[in-house]
Amino acid sequence: MNPTACLLVIGNEILSGRTQDVNVQYIARRLSETGITLSEVRIIPDIRAVIVRNVTQARAAYDNVFTTGGIGPTHDDITSACVAESFGVPWVHHPETFRLLEAHFTPADFNAARQRMATMPQGAVPIRNSVSVAPGFTMGNVHVMAGVPRIMRAMFEEVLPTLPHGTPVTSEAWHANGLYEGSLAAGLETIQQRYPDIDIGSYPYRLDESSRGVCLLCKGTDADGVKAASSAVRDLIKQLGFTPQAGEPPKA
Amino acid sequence: MNPTACLLVIGNEILSGRTQDVNVQYIARRLSETGITLSEVRIIPDIRAVIVRNVTQARAAYDNVFTTGGIGPTHDDITSACVAESFGVPWVHHPETFRLLEAHFTPADFNAARQRMATMPQGAVPIRNSVSVAPGFTMGNVHVMAGVPRIMRAMFEEVLPTLPHGTPVTSEAWHANGLYEGSLAAGLETIQQRYPDIDIGSYPYRLDESSRGVCLLCKGTDADGVKAASSAVRDLIKQLGFTPQAGEPPKA
Repeated sequence: MNPTACLLVIGNEILSGRTQDVNVQYIARRLSETGITLSEVRIIPDIRAVIVRNVTQARAAYDNVFTTGGIGPTHDDITSACVAESFGVPWVHHPETFRLLEAHFTPADFNAARQRMATMPQGAVPIRNSVSVAPGFTMGNVHVMAGVPRIMRAMFEEVLPTLPHGTPVTSEAWHANGLYEGSLAAGLETIQQRYPDIDIGSYPYRLDESSRGVCLLCKGTDADGVKAASSAVRDLIKQLGFTPQAGEPPKA
Repeated sequence: MNPTACLLVIGNEILSGRTQDVNVQYIARRLSETGITLSEVRIIPDIRAVIVRNVTQARAAYDNVFTTGGIGPTHDDITSACVAESFGVPWVHHPETFRLLEAHFTPADFNAARQRMATMPQGAVPIRNSVSVAPGFTMGNVHVMAGVPRIMRAMFEEVLPTLPHGTPVTSEAWHANGLYEGSLAAGLETIQQRYPDIDIGSYPYRLDESSRGVCLLCKGTDADGVKAASSAVRDLIKQLGFTPQAGEPPKA
């Protein structure tokens, strides 16, 4: 079994619809490629009690917890203090981070708000990165990252190689124009039963008004099983009188 | 207090990174405009026990639960049966829906898989819609919708006008090129303390390598409070020596 992960997306801007999240897909894809199972994502508001409760639940339930958002210098950036509360440790000055921030800013600019970015849960290890002088941090199995995608990615790529991981997920896809899910469901279920460890997904697509079809995706950590299930899927498409095309359909 | 909502996004394709979700933002924005608070989003896999547990928790904790995904005809479409299990009711044939599906398909095409789309939790009310002959359904306070965005939207717009709602959220935004969060944090916190019921968010942006800034967003159900907080934010930007520009920054 691969290690598990939970992602907590912390931010009113996602829950209000202001911002289209793009971090979930990036993290999901990279974890999958690495052999860590993303078991759950929760998008939660910037409310202290809610963040603390979710961090506490998630770090007990999963091998790894990632958080995005809420680590900047403003009043709505409360993730770091909430992680300290979840772990029951003080939220303290981190001298090394303080010195790095101090060196980065002019004395006039290094005000109380910016100094606050050097405060972390006691025992946290900073996640240095190439994009932002203000670091994320790892506390136990919780990895706290920025919400801005460019900074999040830099932090995530620092952490990922340090984590225990299992077998990467491989996948093979077929798609067929003109085929509908309802026509292949019975055959597909038979294939799924033959390969219970392979995750076989069926995704209708629509290229334009007149051109639709279904994409069938086989994935799993057993690469041989994926190949076998995928060739059974290809044969099913042919049996139904359609033309299997390798890979995902073009984007609509 | 506005009624609350939780969205359960059910789908391995989101958790694996295959698919970029776009339903969260649509639902979030429409709920906000309508006066229903989206309190939480959970993205969960197509695993029966996980879906049942989350539906059961969410329908107890929130006024409304929406689900997207997992209501098609294939083996991985298990949302409907899971909702029945959560409510402790049988998953039964729905005669009216069966007749509508039967009228839509040719006899040869109306196979067991498609007939299965006429099965619902006992007591569920179908969500008819203009896009898909296979309906979603409402069971208690749980609204079960398709995952395909075009179909989800049609179902959602049928349900939304039937729900109790509160006061729509209004918002005003200012942005300022060249301004950094760390410079305005203290002033912004003072404004937040003066308007505790207004949600004031601070969002850095980056138009290109040389052009950055901060967007400040005031929102809430008290429209006068939003206006007052927003004009305080505008004045703060001026005091700091920057030029407040109305609205969100242009997309990078």
